[in-house]
Amino acid sequence: METRGPGYLIADEDMLRPNSPLGHGVEAVRRALIGRRLRSAEEIHERVGVVKGLAVFASDNISSSAYATEEIMRVLLLAGAGALALTVPVTIAIVIVLAIVVISYQQTIGAYPNGGGSYIVAADNLGPAAGLVAAGALLTDYVLTVSVSIAAGVAALTSIFPEAYDWRVAIGVACVAILGIGNLRGIRESATLFALPTYLYLVAIFALLGYGLFLSASGRFPAYQAPAGWIPSGTGQALGLALLLRAFAAGSVALTGTEAVSNGVPAFAPPEPGRARAVLILMGTFFALIFLGVSSLAGQLGIVPDPSEQETVISQLTRTLVGTGTPMHWLVQISTALLLVLAANTAFADFPRLGSILARDRFLPRVFQFRGDRLAFSSGIVLLAVIAAVFIVAFGGSVTELIPLYTIGVFVAFTLSQAGMVRHWWRRQNERRWRARAAINGIGAVTTGIVAIEVGIAKFTLGAWMVLVLIPVLISVMWGIARHYREVGDALTLDRTDMPLPRLAVPHVVVPVARLDRSALAALAYARSISLDVTALHVTDDAAEAEQMRRRWVLRNDGIPLVIIESPYRALIPPLLAYIDERERADPERAITVVLAEFVPRRFWDYLLHNQTALRLKLRLFFRPNTVVVDVPYHL
Amino acid sequence: METRGPGYLIADEDMLRPNSPLGHGVEAVRRALIGRRLRSAEEIHERVGVVKGLAVFASDNISSSAYATEEIMRVLLLAGAGALALTVPVTIAIVIVLAIVVISYQQTIGAYPNGGGSYIVAADNLGPAAGLVAAGALLTDYVLTVSVSIAAGVAALTSIFPEAYDWRVAIGVACVAILGIGNLRGIRESATLFALPTYLYLVAIFALLGYGLFLSASGRFPAYQAPAGWIPSGTGQALGLALLLRAFAAGSVALTGTEAVSNGVPAFAPPEPGRARAVLILMGTFFALIFLGVSSLAGQLGIVPDPSEQETVISQLTRTLVGTGTPMHWLVQISTALLLVLAANTAFADFPRLGSILARDRFLPRVFQFRGDRLAFSSGIVLLAVIAAVFIVAFGGSVTELIPLYTIGVFVAFTLSQAGMVRHWWRRQNERRWRARAAINGIGAVTTGIVAIEVGIAKFTLGAWMVLVLIPVLISVMWGIARHYREVGDALTLDRTDMPLPRLAVPHVVVPVARLDRSALAALAYARSISLDVTALHVTDDAAEAEQMRRRWVLRNDGIPLVIIESPYRALIPPLLAYIDERERADPERAITVVLAEFVPRRFWDYLLHNQTALRLKLRLFFRPNTVVVDVPYHL
Repeated sequence: METRGPGYLIADEDMLRPNSPLGHGVEAVRRALIGRRLRSAEEIHERVGVVKGLAVFASDNISSSAYATEEIMRVLLLAGAGALALTVPVTIAIVIVLAIVVISYQQTIGAYPNGGGSYIVAADNLGPAAGLVAAGALLTDYVLTVSVSIAAGVAALTSIFPEAYDWRVAIGVACVAILGIGNLRGIRESATLFALPTYLYLVAIFALLGYGLFLSASGRFPAYQAPAGWIPSGTGQALGLALLLRAFAAGSVALTGTEAVSNGVPAFAPPEPGRARAVLILMGTFFALIFLGVSSLAGQLGIVPDPSEQETVISQLTRTLVGTGTPMHWLVQISTALLLVLAANTAFADFPRLGSILARDRFLPRVFQFRGDRLAFSSGIVLLAVIAAVFIVAFGGSVTELIPLYTIGVFVAFTLSQAGMVRHWWRRQNERRWRARAAINGIGAVTTGIVAIEVGIAKFTLGAWMVLVLIPVLISVMWGIARHYREVGDALTLDRTDMPLPRLAVPHVVVPVARLDRSALAALAYARSISLDVTALHVTDDAAEAEQMRRRWVLRNDGIPLVIIESPYRALIPPLLAYIDERERADPERAITVVLAEFVPRRFWDYLLHNQTALRLKLRLFFRPNTVVVDVPYHL
Repeated sequence: METRGPGYLIADEDMLRPNSPLGHGVEAVRRALIGRRLRSAEEIHERVGVVKGLAVFASDNISSSAYATEEIMRVLLLAGAGALALTVPVTIAIVIVLAIVVISYQQTIGAYPNGGGSYIVAADNLGPAAGLVAAGALLTDYVLTVSVSIAAGVAALTSIFPEAYDWRVAIGVACVAILGIGNLRGIRESATLFALPTYLYLVAIFALLGYGLFLSASGRFPAYQAPAGWIPSGTGQALGLALLLRAFAAGSVALTGTEAVSNGVPAFAPPEPGRARAVLILMGTFFALIFLGVSSLAGQLGIVPDPSEQETVISQLTRTLVGTGTPMHWLVQISTALLLVLAANTAFADFPRLGSILARDRFLPRVFQFRGDRLAFSSGIVLLAVIAAVFIVAFGGSVTELIPLYTIGVFVAFTLSQAGMVRHWWRRQNERRWRARAAINGIGAVTTGIVAIEVGIAKFTLGAWMVLVLIPVLISVMWGIARHYREVGDALTLDRTDMPLPRLAVPHVVVPVARLDRSALAALAYARSISLDVTALHVTDDAAEAEQMRRRWVLRNDGIPLVIIESPYRALIPPLLAYIDERERADPERAITVVLAEFVPRRFWDYLLHNQTALRLKLRLFFRPNTVVVDVPYHL
């Protein structure tokens, strides 16, 4: 350790080195998976520019194009194949909402250069309760972003590798695990690792759509073959407003991920707001073009969704245009799958960051605030990975079954965030153009609010109810945690920082002695070194044994009095506690200290054969006021 | 607490009373299930006479008559219904072995009035290794006694209540739980509770057999109807010696439980050996008569076992003689079921007792030696109940599938015990008739040894291999436990009981301080009360925060030096340990004491939100030699 001044030391990396063979093994695996440790001061280098920023933050939104069209079509198909003609109008309606949200968020980025996530904006302007609602909604949606994106990514793969279909749950869980490990390595390397797929996807999908439009314009459309197992008949549902609204709700999953950019402004290299705005606009434009292109071409070709979810609509579109198993087909599918994995990665950037902000505000346990060896918020990453994997397993890796849970949280967050922005401008009436700005965010809030209600109603029975139950539960847990920390903080805070240290008398020390052996002597010797007032205590159910103990004790003549308690009911701990109570009644001013001899075996599992009584005693004493417990370990 | 002399107190029952509402609730349930607490001195009253002794100790053996005939028949039936004619000869062979064992054990009871279980006799005469083999075999068999008896008892019930057949696993597990609770209440009440069924069974079964013999003698046998689902054809297996030996092995389950009496001699009222001998002879006679009677009548009536195990052979015998659903049919079945439950109870008396003996000899953890509130060996009872329930669930409550695992252990134990008795007499050549006595036990040892090998081979592939793997594993675990306790004992024992108490200097005290709050002040105040050499230690990853801490500390002027460690890798515990290492190197003679401020929240679950770092630090320090950890809890 380096000394920087009197009483000021700097820890170095050496002391983090393990010193056991097992520890070395764990460390080697950890290094290989997570990478070398980073100093806190190394953080500034972990920022991204527009190019990498688009990969990290926009991929969530853009990747929705892989399934948004398909989910609209699945709903419309309930009214028969003819209803699929409405896919494009529904798509256009959703793109309009997207445009409103993107414009609205441009202002949020400007107003909150330190990160304008819905939680911050809502809490800042509408109060902590609104902030918590936004936070609960977002946490839920980040989890679903991972589950849905990974499930959709696996579907993109099973479109070209039908053999993998039976393994889709296992593949999905493995992807989540790999993402978790990648994110424990830290965000910069994630961006490097993941930048390629985004651009690969953009190039591949635009090339495909361009080729499709060219074929369409030149009137040379190839013939389409529906997937095996498809029966050309709807469920006979009427094509009413309700079904249209459900289709809109299903497709509005397209907007998830728009939030990510404004939440992650501080992750951009300076000037942060400028780069973030550029990424947000690029993202919206790219997404809208792809979404409209896919919906339009799918409609023109007469594509129908695969009921078994083995082949995606994108894959059908691609294979119809360029042929099954061609390099282009593979390129589109593989880049789609990679992009979706990257989209899940967005949530891995945002969930832990939001978790750390919530922990800073005391709504989550402190551990979420702690950054690991690579400056990543390890606890949040691990928690997210575990819950997302559970969702994938629970829903059998089906995108269509997961979708109804998704979206609702994100629109609740949008609404609160934009409403908060209206309040933000209202408070800054001296700023230029505050009215126009408030109006823009107001339109955003009203639009997303309407969509939130619409999605909640349309998807309620399909699974949205789970989310509508989960979010309030999450909010009340976080509220409870915050109240608890506040109470504790109030109780522990010093009234004045120079509040004097209490003067305590030397404690009464009680040493329970089960047998007269070396570990007992070690405990007694320690007790005598910290106090002159030591009593040894022997509890037994055997009067003859007690007498023998008394005689040996007298012979030893250590100057420490021995008290024997005969316990006819064989209990060990209650008589001991009763004795301590009596001692305390006799002299209530002085604290009781219990010195326990604990034997430390050489092998960890041998511990099961020892100290069980000491452990129980410690637990009981821990909850007894004014009692200090001292462990004197005896090592072999 | 009552004071009996200077430094000698007697604990009373008051201090065992709970003082929280939850504790009162738990205590009320405990009292209702287990009964009032018993003083150790009350033990002498917990003894049994011949009548109750027969109920407690002979029920295991006698109850085998409920399934022994059936298991022989199931094996013979593999060679076709004609082979069933061999049931009676096989039965007679087994009864001869039983007679040899009973005579042989008469001598064991005389020689070991304090309990001559196989473990004791084998260890005493053949050395601890032989003892452990017997112990491992017995522990396994006690578990199977419970599983098999309960499964057979449930089969006796499903014979008259076919509706219960689908619930047989659940009913079996419930019976095991009830038995466990009953035994936690203590042995005397068990005997009272269980004496009735034994005698009810004896009366019912002898009445039935007498009536059957009368019908047989008068040539008025009723017609027999085979159970539904029975197909009158064997598996075509040849009726060779192998099948005959397998039938013998299956039927030799009849001898299980013979051991129980000699193992439990001290549970009899004085004169213990006389009463025990009487019980053993009564048991053997009753059992042989029932076994022969059932086999003979079943053969005469042409009864075949039910392949689904829904109706037992005893039930078929009864209903054929007295009619389905008659009061007599019900009486036989219900008393059989009750007796089998009682048989399981025998294991509940013996397993914990053997466990306590093994724990006394340090082959099992000490907890098995500790007697609970009702003087029962609680841990052994609970462990037995859990494992037996697992077996019932694993084998779907089928007697026929459990039987191959059974028996082998008991014959291994018989052999070792009788061989030990031979050695016993060999060492007492000055005693009267030692040669004759050695010969009797020698015949017993050879006979049971042959049966043990025979059973092991005949049932090996059917499941006996599991037991033949399990027993050595058990033995090596027990051997390992004993070696560990011996090593620890050697290391801890004082060379001389008057070995002087080491004189320790006042310790170096280190107090980690995360924040300057009330709990930190409490820890610092305590540290100062036990030593003049106290250092506060603050670990942080934030240099600005460190500077603020330093300034506040100087202003406080407590006279305790503060050391700040800046940790750029954000780790808390390794720098702390490195500092302690440095302190120790500077002054290796004096022990380091670490005083930890621990905050005690009001509700237990709030504990999850606190002290996680303190807990990890304690774990690390526990394994560091020469380091004492002091917990200073701060209660709200």
